Amino acid sequence: MDLHSDPVWQERKTRAAAWFERLRDDICSAFEAIEQDLESAQSDPAPTRTEAGTFERKTWRRPTKDGTQGGGGTMSIMEGRVFEKVGVNISVVEGKFSPEFAASIPGANEDPRFWASGVSLVAHMQSPLVPAVHMNTRMIVTTQGWFGGGADLTPMRIREEDSQAFHAGLQAACDRHDEAYYPKFKKWCDDYFFLHHRKEPRGIGGIFYDQHNTGDWEADFAFTQDVGRAFLSSYEPIVRAHMNKPWTHDDREHQLVRRGRYVEYNLLHDRGTLFGLKTGGNIDAILMSMPPVVKWPSPLSDISGEIA
Amino acid sequence: MDLHSDPVWQERKTRAAAWFERLRDDICSAFEAIEQDLESAQSDPAPTRTEAGTFERKTWRRPTKDGTQGGGGTMSIMEGRVFEKVGVNISVVEGKFSPEFAASIPGANEDPRFWASGVSLVAHMQSPLVPAVHMNTRMIVTTQGWFGGGADLTPMRIREEDSQAFHAGLQAACDRHDEAYYPKFKKWCDDYFFLHHRKEPRGIGGIFYDQHNTGDWEADFAFTQDVGRAFLSSYEPIVRAHMNKPWTHDDREHQLVRRGRYVEYNLLHDRGTLFGLKTGGNIDAILMSMPPVVKWPSPLSDISGEIA
Repeated sequence: MDLHSDPVWQERKTRAAAWFERLRDDICSAFEAIEQDLESAQSDPAPTRTEAGTFERKTWRRPTKDGTQGGGGTMSIMEGRVFEKVGVNISVVEGKFSPEFAASIPGANEDPRFWASGVSLVAHMQSPLVPAVHMNTRMIVTTQGWFGGGADLTPMRIREEDSQAFHAGLQAACDRHDEAYYPKFKKWCDDYFFLHHRKEPRGIGGIFYDQHNTGDWEADFAFTQDVGRAFLSSYEPIVRAHMNKPWTHDDREHQLVRRGRYVEYNLLHDRGTLFGLKTGGNIDAILMSMPPVVKWPSPLSDISGEIA
Repeated sequence: MDLHSDPVWQERKTRAAAWFERLRDDICSAFEAIEQDLESAQSDPAPTRTEAGTFERKTWRRPTKDGTQGGGGTMSIMEGRVFEKVGVNISVVEGKFSPEFAASIPGANEDPRFWASGVSLVAHMQSPLVPAVHMNTRMIVTTQGWFGGGADLTPMRIREEDSQAFHAGLQAACDRHDEAYYPKFKKWCDDYFFLHHRKEPRGIGGIFYDQHNTGDWEADFAFTQDVGRAFLSSYEPIVRAHMNKPWTHDDREHQLVRRGRYVEYNLLHDRGTLFGLKTGGNIDAILMSMPPVVKWPSPLSDISGEIA
């Protein structure tokens, strides 16, 4: 069946893309409210910005080459006093996979055309006491249609109650749909966000799922919506719990060094980043995940950057 | 012929390793003298260190697994007031290539044993007016023996006279050996140090050569020695010409953003870095090339980080 001309799938694409846009709006509103609600930041060094941030948007178009590419996206970026740098991308793109890529993508061998839409977010925080976070959900259509995504937390120093709360929020979203989801998607996340060259996890994990197609599109879409909502409702209280606490110079240095691990992960291991960079994706949108400031000190320094 | 038990090659290995060590010593002495000779640094922001730096050393051993690995190296690291972070590594390692690697390495298919020694250097400078630099030379022995290496300059903003002087120094070293070398090795460098994802060169180039074996080992060794000397004699005057000039906040911000390109290159494209990280090399030694502080600002910012 040609899903690209099928009116049922046309409606599904429209609904999914509209959801990703709405989730983006909800997240941006919630994050701007957090910026407003900061009470104090008696910290060393002081945050690089003192005024509450607001999101700015920038739209990009995918280059159309031989009529085989199309679409584009919108980056929403905020550099604030709680969120040192947060980017929320939404995109709707369509085109044809090259034969090499088509071979590795479900349903693309018979027909290389694809449609993809999603929302992705990375937040790097001013306070070393507030974890960084990543969330992405997406819908892909070839001759098959499926969802993928997840959310994972990267604290600078582990606080057990934050980890438990974050995992519990995602588990509740999973369990509403299928009790088999959470253990499977949690393990998938732990396996995926791992720095093989250092034999270290990137953070404390979360969930990751891909090629998710149970045969019930409505259920799969509802699950993906719940993942987005659970991300926001799990992360927001963690930010608010810690954002007004003072931090020390050593906390900040450790944060800047740990961010190096984030860069190493994204440029060495992250399949989405590498896929985007190697296929001529929008560089600004792909590298919006890079932290605003990072340090790699001398290996003789006593700042290890390891998670602890 | 088994080069690993041949006394002629044994002596060659010893001489090459001793040269790399001596070049390391000469470079460290010259760089420490530069640190002493800094006159002023009326700059915004001020350099992060005000005292003249000195090199510290750290030795590492390569893990021996099933008796197939061996050797180690020494990192020399200085965090100074001219050299914000400079690392000079020397190493002598031997072992057996895995079958996958052996297939891509000259002479290793018949016999996977290898011996390798070299010196490698990356310098990131306090002043945005002083170019960063990279140099590496090495000797490899399988069932064949060869040299490789090069040097390349990464200015933050291009100054034509620096570029010409750096290229001229390397060209003079090449021309003493073979007038065909410089054009070939300069092009190789331009092709190699290129950020494909951004379609940007990493810097202004220099020379790069590999699998260099003319059949006259003495001549090839003399050439490799000359490359090391030419690197030092070309780079030192460029540092001294600019290190006492004041810089502005905007100069420094541009430098920190341009350093992001260096990170992207090393983690996305540099074959040596990826080879080392994927084969269990010493992470501290491999990632000593990372800049001490780096920024990736919002894509809405007006700091592009492009070389100009």
